[in-house]
Amino acid sequence: MITMEKILWEQVQLVRQQSPLVHNITNYVVMNNTANALLAAGASPIMAHAKSEIQEMIGIAHSVVINIGTLDEYWSESMILAAETAHSTGKPWVLDPVGAGATSFRDEVLNQLLQYKPTVIRGNASEIIALAKAHTTVTKGVDSTAQSNEAVDAAQSLVSQNGTIVCISGETDIILDTQQEVFIKNGDPLMTKVTGLGCSATALIGAFIGVAEDKVLAVAAAMALIGIAGELAAEESKGPGSLQIHLIDKLYTITEQEFVNHLKIERK
Amino acid sequence: MITMEKILWEQVQLVRQQSPLVHNITNYVVMNNTANALLAAGASPIMAHAKSEIQEMIGIAHSVVINIGTLDEYWSESMILAAETAHSTGKPWVLDPVGAGATSFRDEVLNQLLQYKPTVIRGNASEIIALAKAHTTVTKGVDSTAQSNEAVDAAQSLVSQNGTIVCISGETDIILDTQQEVFIKNGDPLMTKVTGLGCSATALIGAFIGVAEDKVLAVAAAMALIGIAGELAAEESKGPGSLQIHLIDKLYTITEQEFVNHLKIERK
Amino acid sequence: MITMEKILWEQVQLVRQQSPLVHNITNYVVMNNTANALLAAGASPIMAHAKSEIQEMIGIAHSVVINIGTLDEYWSESMILAAETAHSTGKPWVLDPVGAGATSFRDEVLNQLLQYKPTVIRGNASEIIALAKAHTTVTKGVDSTAQSNEAVDAAQSLVSQNGTIVCISGETDIILDTQQEVFIKNGDPLMTKVTGLGCSATALIGAFIGVAEDKVLAVAAAMALIGIAGELAAEESKGPGSLQIHLIDKLYTITEQEFVNHLKIERK
Repeated sequence: MITMEKILWEQVQLVRQQSPLVHNITNYVVMNNTANALLAAGASPIMAHAKSEIQEMIGIAHSVVINIGTLDEYWSESMILAAETAHSTGKPWVLDPVGAGATSFRDEVLNQLLQYKPTVIRGNASEIIALAKAHTTVTKGVDSTAQSNEAVDAAQSLVSQNGTIVCISGETDIILDTQQEVFIKNGDPLMTKVTGLGCSATALIGAFIGVAEDKVLAVAAAMALIGIAGELAAEESKGPGSLQIHLIDKLYTITEQEFVNHLKIERK
Repeated sequence: MITMEKILWEQVQLVRQQSPLVHNITNYVVMNNTANALLAAGASPIMAHAKSEIQEMIGIAHSVVINIGTLDEYWSESMILAAETAHSTGKPWVLDPVGAGATSFRDEVLNQLLQYKPTVIRGNASEIIALAKAHTTVTKGVDSTAQSNEAVDAAQSLVSQNGTIVCISGETDIILDTQQEVFIKNGDPLMTKVTGLGCSATALIGAFIGVAEDKVLAVAAAMALIGIAGELAAEESKGPGSLQIHLIDKLYTITEQEFVNHLKIERK
Repeated sequence: MITMEKILWEQVQLVRQQSPLVHNITNYVVMNNTANALLAAGASPIMAHAKSEIQEMIGIAHSVVINIGTLDEYWSESMILAAETAHSTGKPWVLDPVGAGATSFRDEVLNQLLQYKPTVIRGNASEIIALAKAHTTVTKGVDSTAQSNEAVDAAQSLVSQNGTIVCISGETDIILDTQQEVFIKNGDPLMTKVTGLGCSATALIGAFIGVAEDKVLAVAAAMALIGIAGELAAEESKGPGSLQIHLIDKLYTITEQEFVNHLKIERK
């Protein structure tokens, strides 16, 4: 029998073997780290945002990552052009709605990006909730019993309206599309003290959906990889500075045994 | 009796407990490091520079950091808008005049920023001197006996004209306003070989003035924290690469005993 | 007799002693790392790209680094202005044609930059080939026996048309001008898994040509320094994360004995 552990590990190997070219339009804060995370996992990062070249760049890429962290007027136009190009040329793309709901500018840009049907959206619970609110005319009730329930409702609304996969990252990562829900329970609390590990997760999702057939499993594999690498890295780290370094090392050195032994996954 | 050691340590704890939201418009070189320094110290960094959202972002922040390191025409307009918004809404803000005096463009932007009365200005001696020269009509004599004297004169002129606190960082950090002078003698020479630790100091000042009543003590606590963390980090570092990592770890793990035992402070 | 080992080591010492001011217009991904590499090697980095101040900044710099990694319309204009200023004021400058050939936008910008006769061009084999193709009217045959031969042909065409030094980096770094060829065989394969080490090499070249008379030897010394530091760093690294840190440490701590004992150089 092929176990989920085996199936997800095969995705990790696929990225290492095929080294997908991942085109990133991401934020200034995390560019270095996400490029290093992609390299360590076996992918090939491109970082390019000029409107004059985005379409050609996407032409040579396997997948596209759009992260609005430090967006401005120019960059948001680049992102929209990239999303449109990815959508029209059939390249898988992942959206990281950093800071959704914090300003109306972010929400407007996110609404425009959603038109181009991201293959995957990855955000934390509050971002997913804000994104769904900004996007749907019927606002969700604010009396939701718990934030995680509210986030799942929000995710389901994004799934049904956009045909996208949503990944709500947190202590448990929840990955869902119209047909299934997968839960990944890896990671370490110290990871929240390092800037941009969510963005690195999104970039890894970009790599995995660039090579995998089953996109839900690709997202699950990417989240499992960074979660397990983070757990193993935390064991030997004195604080968030060393965690960041050990995490990159682990993404590069992780073995099938480490991956399979640590994976905590559930499906519904 | 409450010692200065206790009072400054309380500021460190205050940041850890209240986790202030610090809005940064800073330079590309240090964005990752300063975000990680803020997280390690217990604060919550926001990095956002778009003119379309700055005012809303500052609305949710406890304090604002403006660092002109890699400014350009667009970013300088964002910075001025941010300074104006912080000033008019009563949010404490700190200015890092990186490279003051190097070009007339920098000096013009700095002059505009000074109109909005930064709560704190932190720079090295030559930046503080250049800033005062650019800002005052009466130029300081160049036959000053020593650069540190000249810097203190410059700082006092900035204090009296802008009602700001000035922190001249160096082997000894000098923090002064109209009423007092505080000297912090922590740090390690290896810190000068890591890019952006001055910028991290400024970001930490942003966190501390976001929660503290007494802003001079807040600045002293921030400078002491990074100085002591740097000293402790240097002890276990082989060079500037590992220093940067250990410093982030130490900002996160530093204990009251480490802080109190290492603090070197004087007041006038 | 003065050996090549001694001559190159003298260049390393020259940078440490004279601490050249190196003005960088480089890409967002590597700004932090290249600034740290320059500091660790003893140089003083400036990162500034505003059209309003580039000319003044170059006025105070010893050399200029232009790296097109994350170029856009504004930045390309800055780069062209910087190249023009460096050329007209006689400052040595180095061009890193990141991603040459990937898009027509890049090739157009590179063609404009080449007008200002870079002192040195450093790129990998495919970038050097693409640069020569974009720049020359006579296209090279695609039936070249091997990529490294094709790259050397491309480099020679760039050398003869622009009076530049070309450094093709790879397992063996090939440095050539009209008169000589130098081969540096240092480095470690793990270095290719860290983003921006090529960019750091270019930045170091910028530092070395800022102080050295013989620019070919300056390039050789810079490439040897990063290659040897990378080798020594790889010995104690568990993966690409720790390699990046140890490499910065080694650039700072490397001794004459380590340098001389590890240098693998050939000349033609």
